[in-house]
Amino acid sequence: MNENHIPKMESHNLNQSITIFAPATVANVACGFDSLGFSLNEPGDEVIISLSDSPGVKITKITGDDGKLPLDAESNTAGVSVLAFLKSIKSDQGIDIEIHKQMPLGSGLGSSAASSVAAVVGANELLGKPLSKKDLLPFAILGEKKACGSAHADNVAPALLGGFILIRSYNPLDVVSIPFPEQLYATVLHPHIELRTEDVRKIMRREIKLQDAIVQWSNLAGLIAGLMKSDYSLISRSLNDIIFEPVRSLLIPGFDEVKQAAMQAGALGCSISGSGPSVFALCTTRTTAQEVGDAMQQALTHVGLQSDLYVSPINGDGVSVVKQINS
Amino acid sequence: MNENHIPKMESHNLNQSITIFAPATVANVACGFDSLGFSLNEPGDEVIISLSDSPGVKITKITGDDGKLPLDAESNTAGVSVLAFLKSIKSDQGIDIEIHKQMPLGSGLGSSAASSVAAVVGANELLGKPLSKKDLLPFAILGEKKACGSAHADNVAPALLGGFILIRSYNPLDVVSIPFPEQLYATVLHPHIELRTEDVRKIMRREIKLQDAIVQWSNLAGLIAGLMKSDYSLISRSLNDIIFEPVRSLLIPGFDEVKQAAMQAGALGCSISGSGPSVFALCTTRTTAQEVGDAMQQALTHVGLQSDLYVSPINGDGVSVVKQINS
Repeated sequence: MNENHIPKMESHNLNQSITIFAPATVANVACGFDSLGFSLNEPGDEVIISLSDSPGVKITKITGDDGKLPLDAESNTAGVSVLAFLKSIKSDQGIDIEIHKQMPLGSGLGSSAASSVAAVVGANELLGKPLSKKDLLPFAILGEKKACGSAHADNVAPALLGGFILIRSYNPLDVVSIPFPEQLYATVLHPHIELRTEDVRKIMRREIKLQDAIVQWSNLAGLIAGLMKSDYSLISRSLNDIIFEPVRSLLIPGFDEVKQAAMQAGALGCSISGSGPSVFALCTTRTTAQEVGDAMQQALTHVGLQSDLYVSPINGDGVSVVKQINS
Repeated sequence: MNENHIPKMESHNLNQSITIFAPATVANVACGFDSLGFSLNEPGDEVIISLSDSPGVKITKITGDDGKLPLDAESNTAGVSVLAFLKSIKSDQGIDIEIHKQMPLGSGLGSSAASSVAAVVGANELLGKPLSKKDLLPFAILGEKKACGSAHADNVAPALLGGFILIRSYNPLDVVSIPFPEQLYATVLHPHIELRTEDVRKIMRREIKLQDAIVQWSNLAGLIAGLMKSDYSLISRSLNDIIFEPVRSLLIPGFDEVKQAAMQAGALGCSISGSGPSVFALCTTRTTAQEVGDAMQQALTHVGLQSDLYVSPINGDGVSVVKQINS
């Protein structure tokens, strides 16, 4: 980083605050385990970042989490991200963080990623944008690591940058925006059960069959090509996960029925969102996406589970500023 | 198939013959094992197909193979493909096949695929094109199976269709053309050693580490995106094979030196072509491709191996008709 770009703290109005919205995201996207994710318009988290006279990073308030998230900044995903960001730009600016969770925790929709991304983007905005949006990614990843135990980027990157994001490499970090058809809608069903990401990851095998890997990467290559060609049939043919879904879906009651209902209602494909328990489908129109969602929700009701349903276009922009106050 | 489309044999001039060129191909393309291949302008095989008064499929002549290839049609890759094609269209037309190998056998450049593709395309042309080019793929794959013991399509599909071809699925067969930048050149170095495809496949593990698979499929996804975006840097960053190259390259003397020479001379990437021993590099200009080739060949000479060098644009068309004679 160019030292000249480090913001001068004294030039900032210390009453400034900013409200940031960061969206829910669907990671893995069937065949793209740890590699591909996309961003929704809703749900998402709102995070209010304020400059503070007193030094340090404080989590001043969290709503919508049923008291489950830590208020200690060094234990909180948003706090960890902002602390790492401030350290990187050598700033000792005091920062207050208020987190309004507007999406379910532990749902497989990138809840922790949304809070991390919103917080670090807010801090960067208030400090005069010393870093580009893309440069903020490593700090959001650190927050994600705090939340789920491993430094994955397939939720934080799409929450930050919007659209479909391929994580080509972690070392060095290399993220690639994948163009996608405008008419693409996501249906997300969040069953009211809770899975812990760490637990889900524990049931994964460390070795996989070569033949399965070939099928999986051929489908991922097909999905990338389908998105970039706006070829819905190819997207549909490629949206298969033969490695993780057969194992992980065992933890989601009614998964097979929900998927069958989605496909019968006209979804291009249907799989587990992130580590679950949420289930996503991709559709070509909002009407179909709604019908698919209704069918999925009904199927889940049949196995006795309540759920939240979200229908959203793909969010091409990612994180956004809701409100900025200079008092 | 529509029965009405079966050609009437009596309508054909039995002295017709056609000469077909089918190009060499690079399969695997670093990260796309069993999934991706591309077509070269040269080298390639010429196959002359003639209608015959006497029934059955005969291999009448093979040149350029040092007597290594079988003349029995049911054992020959081209013969097997044409027999399967004729059976499919319920034709008892007699066919004579003359094969002129103009590329090294067992080189990892899709030699058997080229002969299969040329033969079946020639037969289809002479019989009035009852099938489309793409519909001929399964017959060429059968020939490939005869030659190398497994039914792979990552040589036959690009030899037939041209350009970069993704084999999204084998069951059902689903091949996808991947757009690629116009300014893309391939350098191929064929060291004068011989490996048998079956032998190379035997040293492969049947299970791979999940973490390696993730790296590999993220690179393949990056390569597809890079080709479709004409993003040379992304193509370059993605052209890595961390699973097969480290093992297979042990069978190719001087591989590390050749690869290093290619990269230092400006190649986007360098890896093993198919099962080897040929090594390919991708480059952005013909001049660079030639310089890269010279550097690779020199590096191989240093370890005491002679080689053939080919520099070619990507062949966007695949198989082609050289000459048709209606006598």
